[in-house]
Amino acid sequence: MEKKKGRVTIPTDMDVVADTVRLAQKWGADAVRDCDGTEFPTELKDAGLKVYATYYTTRKDNEWARANPDEIQQMYVMTPIYTASDEKLRIPLMKGLHPDMLMLNTKDSITRWWEVVDRTTGEVVPVADWSFHEAGGEVCVKSIPFHDYTVSFLAYIIWDPVHMYNATVNSWEGVEHQMTFDVRQPKTRAFTMERLERFIKEHPYVDVLRFTTFFHQFTLIFDELCREKYVDWYGYSASVSPYILERFEQEAGYPFRPEYIIDEGYYNGQYRIPSKEYKDFLAFQRREVAKLVKEMVDITHTQQKEAMMFLGDHWIGTEPYLEEFAGIGLDAVVGSVGNGATLRLISDIEGVSYTEGRLLPYFFPDTFYEGGDPVREAKENWVTARRAILRKPVDRIGYGGYLKLALDFPEFVEYVESVCEEFRQLYDNIAGSKPYCAARVAVLNCWGKMRSWGCHMVHHAIYFPQNYSYAGIIEALAGSPFEVSFISFDDIKAQPELLQQFDVLINVGDADTAHTGGEWWCDPVVSCAVKRFVYEGGGMIGVGEPSAHQANGHFFQLSNVFGVEQERGFTLGYDKYNWQEHSHFITEDVEGELDFGEGKKNIYALDSAQVLITKDRNVQLAVNSFGAGRAVYISGLPYNFINNRLLHRAVLWSAGLEDRLCRWFSKNPYVEVHAYLETGRYCAVNNTDKPQQTVIYQGDGTSFELTMEANQILWYEMQK
Amino acid sequence: MEKKKGRVTIPTDMDVVADTVRLAQKWGADAVRDCDGTEFPTELKDAGLKVYATYYTTRKDNEWARANPDEIQQMYVMTPIYTASDEKLRIPLMKGLHPDMLMLNTKDSITRWWEVVDRTTGEVVPVADWSFHEAGGEVCVKSIPFHDYTVSFLAYIIWDPVHMYNATVNSWEGVEHQMTFDVRQPKTRAFTMERLERFIKEHPYVDVLRFTTFFHQFTLIFDELCREKYVDWYGYSASVSPYILERFEQEAGYPFRPEYIIDEGYYNGQYRIPSKEYKDFLAFQRREVAKLVKEMVDITHTQQKEAMMFLGDHWIGTEPYLEEFAGIGLDAVVGSVGNGATLRLISDIEGVSYTEGRLLPYFFPDTFYEGGDPVREAKENWVTARRAILRKPVDRIGYGGYLKLALDFPEFVEYVESVCEEFRQLYDNIAGSKPYCAARVAVLNCWGKMRSWGCHMVHHAIYFPQNYSYAGIIEALAGSPFEVSFISFDDIKAQPELLQQFDVLINVGDADTAHTGGEWWCDPVVSCAVKRFVYEGGGMIGVGEPSAHQANGHFFQLSNVFGVEQERGFTLGYDKYNWQEHSHFITEDVEGELDFGEGKKNIYALDSAQVLITKDRNVQLAVNSFGAGRAVYISGLPYNFINNRLLHRAVLWSAGLEDRLCRWFSKNPYVEVHAYLETGRYCAVNNTDKPQQTVIYQGDGTSFELTMEANQILWYEMQK
Repeated sequence: MEKKKGRVTIPTDMDVVADTVRLAQKWGADAVRDCDGTEFPTELKDAGLKVYATYYTTRKDNEWARANPDEIQQMYVMTPIYTASDEKLRIPLMKGLHPDMLMLNTKDSITRWWEVVDRTTGEVVPVADWSFHEAGGEVCVKSIPFHDYTVSFLAYIIWDPVHMYNATVNSWEGVEHQMTFDVRQPKTRAFTMERLERFIKEHPYVDVLRFTTFFHQFTLIFDELCREKYVDWYGYSASVSPYILERFEQEAGYPFRPEYIIDEGYYNGQYRIPSKEYKDFLAFQRREVAKLVKEMVDITHTQQKEAMMFLGDHWIGTEPYLEEFAGIGLDAVVGSVGNGATLRLISDIEGVSYTEGRLLPYFFPDTFYEGGDPVREAKENWVTARRAILRKPVDRIGYGGYLKLALDFPEFVEYVESVCEEFRQLYDNIAGSKPYCAARVAVLNCWGKMRSWGCHMVHHAIYFPQNYSYAGIIEALAGSPFEVSFISFDDIKAQPELLQQFDVLINVGDADTAHTGGEWWCDPVVSCAVKRFVYEGGGMIGVGEPSAHQANGHFFQLSNVFGVEQERGFTLGYDKYNWQEHSHFITEDVEGELDFGEGKKNIYALDSAQVLITKDRNVQLAVNSFGAGRAVYISGLPYNFINNRLLHRAVLWSAGLEDRLCRWFSKNPYVEVHAYLETGRYCAVNNTDKPQQTVIYQGDGTSFELTMEANQILWYEMQK
Repeated sequence: MEKKKGRVTIPTDMDVVADTVRLAQKWGADAVRDCDGTEFPTELKDAGLKVYATYYTTRKDNEWARANPDEIQQMYVMTPIYTASDEKLRIPLMKGLHPDMLMLNTKDSITRWWEVVDRTTGEVVPVADWSFHEAGGEVCVKSIPFHDYTVSFLAYIIWDPVHMYNATVNSWEGVEHQMTFDVRQPKTRAFTMERLERFIKEHPYVDVLRFTTFFHQFTLIFDELCREKYVDWYGYSASVSPYILERFEQEAGYPFRPEYIIDEGYYNGQYRIPSKEYKDFLAFQRREVAKLVKEMVDITHTQQKEAMMFLGDHWIGTEPYLEEFAGIGLDAVVGSVGNGATLRLISDIEGVSYTEGRLLPYFFPDTFYEGGDPVREAKENWVTARRAILRKPVDRIGYGGYLKLALDFPEFVEYVESVCEEFRQLYDNIAGSKPYCAARVAVLNCWGKMRSWGCHMVHHAIYFPQNYSYAGIIEALAGSPFEVSFISFDDIKAQPELLQQFDVLINVGDADTAHTGGEWWCDPVVSCAVKRFVYEGGGMIGVGEPSAHQANGHFFQLSNVFGVEQERGFTLGYDKYNWQEHSHFITEDVEGELDFGEGKKNIYALDSAQVLITKDRNVQLAVNSFGAGRAVYISGLPYNFINNRLLHRAVLWSAGLEDRLCRWFSKNPYVEVHAYLETGRYCAVNNTDKPQQTVIYQGDGTSFELTMEANQILWYEMQK
């Protein structure tokens, strides 16, 4: 059989030309790319590979930046909270910030664009009551003793944070700090369009402009010791300038306040329930960015090149799950695949011709050092991503970093070859068809579609003790046989009947966060819509502190639906007798002790609920009936194969679809089955690095026994 | 040496007359008492013992109760929260309640005294939109689909809950259920005064009327299965009637709402931040109850008898730490000693001639059964209480229950003798003098002085997973060489400078509870007073989630004081680098791993703080400087001897009083020293059941080595 080729991109550099050609052959790569800090070797122009060129819209032209200091990018920063001890408080602005990265913007009116806030009362300090002392870099506040104060200010980003990060991680020496200029502003905008045209003309061998990315870096700040100080992959703090904000005021019809970005110092992070003003600002930015991106894409197309967006770095304003995105006309999106959820984050994007997933590990020295084990990392990454690819494939895969580093690891080179082959095979077998879905599941939070698959992320796919027990749900869903939607409270508020489209709703996270909704649950339109949905037969799964907000005699606003509540001291006077554990459909595949991750303490069951698992008199898992519907409470569910199966069963049980369990299903939870009715193919995939024995159920409920090798994927034709 | 006698009360019954005399002799008892369900044997009238008679103001006269059903006591009850599924909702009122205990009050106007609340909106349902169906015992509500509803209603207490409890626990058969009548109402009031006079006249041998208690039982409800359903030792739900509430309206000047008692179904429990209306109601009840109690005390005194109050059961309205109490003129208070804190709850009461502590165990069958170990229980109780007695002794001790049960346990009888002797010795050695205090400590919560020592109690001295990590602080303080005050946020608000009276403030509990204060911390008067106090040199100790309420960029409103914050997802974007543990003055006596009880996850240190102990990257113990003052954060501190020492050191360090450590101090934390400068005596007390070696420091810092037997107390004269 002829070896297949294509759907793979490899990185290159000046010093690995021959190896690039050899590995492209070996891996079946049909495209080659450069990387931050590398140059594209001219020898490869005609190697029969599609050529990607990373294109940096906002940097790599310090001459321009220096010549137009007023159009250098800016960000809002808040100082820490300082307590006044008398009637005068001095607040140093740059303390804790790296002076090579940020420089105070004192050119624009500080009384208009900065804000001093009394954090004891929440009130703005009148501009007459504070002043800026340039020499000391301090704001001097006429303070009320023992009130807390902060200063919100604008600073120029004089060293691009990603360039700074790459330079620090790779120990680059003697590299000029790349400044960032703001394409949104008039001079730079004109310059940029002209610069793009010029770049394309000067690089005729390039086929794909890989924009990294457009205009605004996600929030990333370094401290005086070059340590990361603040990061938010979805952060909009660095997408501001007086020029932009004045336009926002015009569109919004109300005056801008720094606080809309600063958000008490929380910077509207993923966990914060977004304010109306912040949502307005996001919408404004998306529209404005989309318009400008379209201009660049049009230039690219005019010159017969493809425009590919990197999903990261300066991607702010191009969140791809919103309406504006598809209208931009981008050819492709490429992004980093940290796990199954981040794979879906890329592959579910609509409105582009193709998507590409950059697999891990990066060919960076933090993995590729003597004694490092890149094969292990690659295998984990691939097997994790593969579940999600089988639900909705990216169209291409690729690797990033410095190819030279990988060459010293021949086992890794071999493994990548097998990954590329396996990817092409499954891509061909799926052939663009939709996989069989046993249920329609919607994740309900404050972000909805906008943050599809990324809703529990802080930095890209990074573990936090506070998110893994919840992100596990999203990760499980990324590879599960369900049609997954992400909806917001705004969506329900606008159209309560939209819930009819789903079999199961999931609300997952901690109380009073954007993930669970906080005081949204006090909106009767929302709470009644959800209760009605369940009452009329819908399924509801709550994880952590679902629907939790202290009000009206509840902490869990859906306590009657879930049949559980949280003891916050207020109900200690009530004796609790419902602790008996029961066996149940949803725990049938559990082996040993379930891992609830961080779990929850202090959850107790109401009389109606059936308790499944407790830990030291804290309910971890319980089920409840509510009208014709059913609810499942889970205290936390980090991603693993057993928990994945638990969620699978919980979805089916809560929706009353237990009879769909043994359809395109593996009895052994370490193996999954994906079926493509349109192409008539299905596969069994062993997600573990051990052989597995299982029983595979086909769509008609018939079954056969199967023994699988470690990590194996086996494809079958459906019987007619 | 002649054996001392006195300060001890023993229980008796008809069937143990000779044994009573014998044991009174052995234990040195000078008083004898009856008990619920026992009769006083006439033979003992002239045994040379002071005679206590339990007197039940509100029960033990069913004839009266039956003749005056309108003056039977009442309580407010809320149904569970029911969700409407259509436009008509039926709510059964008695579901979950024992029909022998409660009976709906349908005699008084239900539209005035009942309330149906829409718990989705928090609004009252107009009386036109609901009706009561007597036959089904249901309220029928015209409902909005999927809104939640509750009914708050009045019910008669037709079986006194304590009588019900005693009958159930002791398996009394064929005993008529004692009804409770309301002394506050006019007919019963007149009857009661006459009845009391009559009782005293009919029992001329009685010296002390032991009131059990006055008018209103703390909240105690049993379910259909005779199981405890709800209990709150401080609960006022059963202190209501239309008669009383109309008087409250007159005093308060605004209409009463059932919700003031119902409190969303939380019944104003100890953890709830009390509303203005509830505080008004408490104040009203205290004044009214005090007036009426005084009448009874006056009758008692007129007849040359003493009036003793039992601190429990029908004690609601007589909380003894408030102004009205001392004016009543009671001779004595007796209460149950569950631990050191409950001992202080009794012994710190002012305005009575003497106090008496009823030690544990009760002579009840749950302890005194074949194979039971009452000595162990008695020893634990005594050694725990002794620490507190050494700070502020009760004037007498005693036992309760059925003496006959104790007779079968001769070891127990011997142990009680030793306790009585030790008690008399220490009482004489203290001789009413004030013990040496190394610092002035104030516990700050919403209840303040009113709930001194009892501020973390739900039922009397009962352990809950939610309270032991915080109640441990109170228990430690009960036996520590500090002058302890309990102050409220209202106190600070009214008089911020009162903080100058203290060396150290303690705020202990979970966020948004009455223990830590919740949104009180958003009151600048309060937060600034506390910050000023610390800044000017005061000490601050926070345990659990001190000062926590999400607002203005803080969760811990005193985060700048404590140097710690809680990660609630909102600051995940901030990198945290301060995890290095340090050794410190306050942990110097720690052996092995500290027990933080439930502890806290997600606490991190600000840059300024010095971290002492972390657990899996969660700060458990940290210290911080703030101006001239110091703060200590502790995640939780259940009571044990090592934690007691940690708190001792934390108090001294935070107040800058480290140089007072080795004054009247034992190097070994299992031994404590108490000094009485007025009497010139001091003692060393081994709190453990093992021998201990230690170094004892005297007031001038000189020291000597000491070996102590298990549980030993050794008394010394100070050197002149």
